[in-house]
Amino acid sequence: MKNIKLTLEYIGTNYAGFQVQKNAVTIEEKLAAAIEKATQEKVKLTASGRTDAGVHATGQVVNFFSATKISLSNLPLVINKYLPSDIKVISSKVVKDDFDARKSATKKTYKYKVITNAKISVFEEPFALFYPYALDYKKMEIAAKTLEGEHDFAAFMASGSQVKTTIRTILKTKLKKVKNGFEFSITGSGFLYNMVRIIVGTLLEVGTGKKDENVFIKMIESKNRALGGKTAAACGLYLEKVVY
Amino acid sequence: MKNIKLTLEYIGTNYAGFQVQKNAVTIEEKLAAAIEKATQEKVKLTASGRTDAGVHATGQVVNFFSATKISLSNLPLVINKYLPSDIKVISSKVVKDDFDARKSATKKTYKYKVITNAKISVFEEPFALFYPYALDYKKMEIAAKTLEGEHDFAAFMASGSQVKTTIRTILKTKLKKVKNGFEFSITGSGFLYNMVRIIVGTLLEVGTGKKDENVFIKMIESKNRALGGKTAAACGLYLEKVVY
Repeated sequence: MKNIKLTLEYIGTNYAGFQVQKNAVTIEEKLAAAIEKATQEKVKLTASGRTDAGVHATGQVVNFFSATKISLSNLPLVINKYLPSDIKVISSKVVKDDFDARKSATKKTYKYKVITNAKISVFEEPFALFYPYALDYKKMEIAAKTLEGEHDFAAFMASGSQVKTTIRTILKTKLKKVKNGFEFSITGSGFLYNMVRIIVGTLLEVGTGKKDENVFIKMIESKNRALGGKTAAACGLYLEKVVY
Repeated sequence: MKNIKLTLEYIGTNYAGFQVQKNAVTIEEKLAAAIEKATQEKVKLTASGRTDAGVHATGQVVNFFSATKISLSNLPLVINKYLPSDIKVISSKVVKDDFDARKSATKKTYKYKVITNAKISVFEEPFALFYPYALDYKKMEIAAKTLEGEHDFAAFMASGSQVKTTIRTILKTKLKKVKNGFEFSITGSGFLYNMVRIIVGTLLEVGTGKKDENVFIKMIESKNRALGGKTAAACGLYLEKVVY
């Protein structure tokens, strides 16, 4: 049995998220079915983490144990034959037996795309948040930088989430102006449920002046979710990269 | 009764083309149903032309007669409420009674997107042709220019098409290099069935050296479809603009 690591990209629009659910079509279910068709094996998938309904990925990582004879270089092609066009395996690798796509991850990068133009087309809508307002990028950058470091992000979590600790380390934030709006990248040791979307929703309110540049500091100190902005829509979010 | 002109954009991926068909989901059907829900009227739609399965539009035009009391400025919003997210009315206008979206059109512009990078992502696949080859853009531009003017484009038509005349005027062609590949725009008085896709398929073979820069001249003179390249895939094609 080999421990196989796959990197995949997907358009989240038509799925109820990554993780298998009853009565809903998920990415994990499609991937497991495709791997079964390709290898004739029922495998147990471990992912770096789940992504929500509508969230996209350019670098989701999963691993599974398999005795397949398919060569590693052919494996993505063979699995992709059985996947719908909005999910694709982009690389495969044999890893050590103790590699676990979730537990072995040392950092993750998410990207969030926002279109600030006055209009959005049907071609852009599934792939970005439409937010047609003037934004103060300088203030947003100042606010984003206050997230960096190890903090208690208890205020940055959807209510009802259960985790052992709400302490996380943010390694890097980056705000990049693009033609139609901006892209926000954030790299961290790990993220709480809805954390990136809460950060982006709050950042947008810093941009419009509704919140000030110290909003994240206040949220961290108070542990009060209510001090933040709205949770930004799923469609703008991309799981970009998982590092091991 | 007012004669109402609508401009729309759509992602063609999930439709069997524009025109209503039995046993297939089409854009026209969705639009007619949405207009009926919005206005409580069954209307007869006239479009600038049909688009094939998988072909996109950023400026398709239709017209219909209606007695609706909905204000012209609200009409797109109200219709869009009843449209799926991949079809959108982007503007509406009351036009003269003799305006006919098909017959009154004086020119049309199509755009075709090609990705020549070594890899294509799931985010790009529905929206461009994947053609990962080195291309000679200079030769392609020279060839494209030979299309301009009034010619008999009998060789530029899917077999079995029935038209009164195969003479068309190409007003402008433009090849634009972009980050991932190129975009080809073509404006003409009108186009035959599959004409743009045959032009692009042939142009790609000029780019790789399989055909020479005079291929279009030879096709026009011989009226022989077999001298051209393959019909390029629908997913790269966009009906960009119709001028009246």
